[in-house]
Amino acid sequence: MRVVAGIDIGGTNTDFGLVDELGNCLKTETVPTKKFKVPKDLVNEVSTRILEMCKSHQLLGIGIGAPNGNYYKGTIEFAPNLPWKGIIPLAKLFEKATHAPCLLTNDANAAAIGEMTFGGAKKMKDFIFITLGTGLGSGLVANGQMIYGHDGLAGELGHVIVIKDGRLCGCGRKGCLETYASATGLKRTINEWIEQGKKTILSGKKEPIVSADIFMAAKKGDALALKAFEFTGEILGLALANSVNYTSPKTIFLFGGLANAKELLFEPTIRHFEENLLNIYKNKIKIVPSKLKENQAAILGAASLAWNQKSRL
Amino acid sequence: MRVVAGIDIGGTNTDFGLVDELGNCLKTETVPTKKFKVPKDLVNEVSTRILEMCKSHQLLGIGIGAPNGNYYKGTIEFAPNLPWKGIIPLAKLFEKATHAPCLLTNDANAAAIGEMTFGGAKKMKDFIFITLGTGLGSGLVANGQMIYGHDGLAGELGHVIVIKDGRLCGCGRKGCLETYASATGLKRTINEWIEQGKKTILSGKKEPIVSADIFMAAKKGDALALKAFEFTGEILGLALANSVNYTSPKTIFLFGGLANAKELLFEPTIRHFEENLLNIYKNKIKIVPSKLKENQAAILGAASLAWNQKSRL
Repeated sequence: MRVVAGIDIGGTNTDFGLVDELGNCLKTETVPTKKFKVPKDLVNEVSTRILEMCKSHQLLGIGIGAPNGNYYKGTIEFAPNLPWKGIIPLAKLFEKATHAPCLLTNDANAAAIGEMTFGGAKKMKDFIFITLGTGLGSGLVANGQMIYGHDGLAGELGHVIVIKDGRLCGCGRKGCLETYASATGLKRTINEWIEQGKKTILSGKKEPIVSADIFMAAKKGDALALKAFEFTGEILGLALANSVNYTSPKTIFLFGGLANAKELLFEPTIRHFEENLLNIYKNKIKIVPSKLKENQAAILGAASLAWNQKSRL
Repeated sequence: MRVVAGIDIGGTNTDFGLVDELGNCLKTETVPTKKFKVPKDLVNEVSTRILEMCKSHQLLGIGIGAPNGNYYKGTIEFAPNLPWKGIIPLAKLFEKATHAPCLLTNDANAAAIGEMTFGGAKKMKDFIFITLGTGLGSGLVANGQMIYGHDGLAGELGHVIVIKDGRLCGCGRKGCLETYASATGLKRTINEWIEQGKKTILSGKKEPIVSADIFMAAKKGDALALKAFEFTGEILGLALANSVNYTSPKTIFLFGGLANAKELLFEPTIRHFEENLLNIYKNKIKIVPSKLKENQAAILGAASLAWNQKSRL
């Protein structure tokens, strides 16, 4: 069978697997990213395993999703959450190790292409894809094409400054969207309020609060946890309303850990989104959950990068 | 000679003319837009004059730039500065009157296509075009294509909300970019400060202050006028830095009345732009004046819409 391999390089794990033309994940494996001190060691291990998986298949190519991935150069550039520093020519390293053509883009772009190829954005020409995890990633599709931008680094909506002199971001600047609208942002919100002495059933918790705790507290009716989701939705809703002025999408897809909070996140986000939309866009644009299966999305997304661009491979 | 006609519908005047394939404006005329109580009267007058101009030429098509123009539908939709209300099927009306194929888009998109076809963005695949006049208009080009969006109404950067609960905008919302970064925004800035009792050589002026007055005052070294340009550049620079996160352009072009203030506007804008850019974009992206001739830009832009899309005509 003709297959492509999808590789998702994450700060903790690197997931990879084979995907057929219909979007079926045939086999998947995982290795811990931080185990590998130099990128070449990871490339060799993953390549060996992929070639092993492919014994009864024809490997057409490889797609890689990675933080700070540069599509044009096939490189990872200064990714703060990976163990390797500087600019890493990852696509070339994989091509050398596997002798298969290889494409790379940032992880959110890969997932957006996955949504377009196998998910809820099939046949959709204009949409925005947002991942809400540790940070906020995004992929923009216009005229049926991923927007990579002049340098291959477009679609960094997590680093739009939404509050002047706001929260310190991992990028070194202040007030970036992802410091508010992400699983980490939600935690910062409630921790700031707890420090100010506001009451919540989470106050007495010994271990650090994680976003799942805030979700559970909100489900139980905890007012502060509910307010934290409301605040997150306010910031995200306004930011998405502003985003519409750029590309006028048909749909905005939300994906990732925080999106799993469903109505707790979607209701306030959509309400503030509609409140802040320019009149010509009102009541036209849907904000919906991604249709990608969460445990397969990263691999599917990376693989669909390869399936979508067979002519470039 | 094969020509197209370019028509620029403005709140005050409607300019039109013939343009050859090299971007030469062969003939131009103007009619006052407000003279025409219904759109059909304008269409009839302008069509008659265009057909008259074309007697020794072959008219291939017509391009129209208009405020709130919808590219897909060929309509003007709820344009606040035009004398006609509701949705107007202007492209169809012109096709009926001239029997020439007709394309329409918003005025800033048309100018962006003009920049790409005849100006400083030739062969450029990713750029942002900003018009700074009464309001702030914009056109986004990615992958060598104008971004029209799902509904044909993309590229409304003037209505990105940059200050929560900020200045009241003509769109009915508060804090839109164009209430600060436009000729009107510059006037509002200095008038607010004068009302607060701040000193400027413009304080005693009997007639309402226009943006040219502020320019002249700044040139003479008036501290408040200089501060007004600094403030405009601060707001615009940050907004453009945020815009880069969307489409990662090679260049940002500034056009229109306020852009003519040159260094007074460009210096603070570029400084605040670089200060606010995400590190991966720093020192890569140019902010430059448009290369379109100001008195011909609107007609050229509209005409290039037609030249660029001959296959659709």
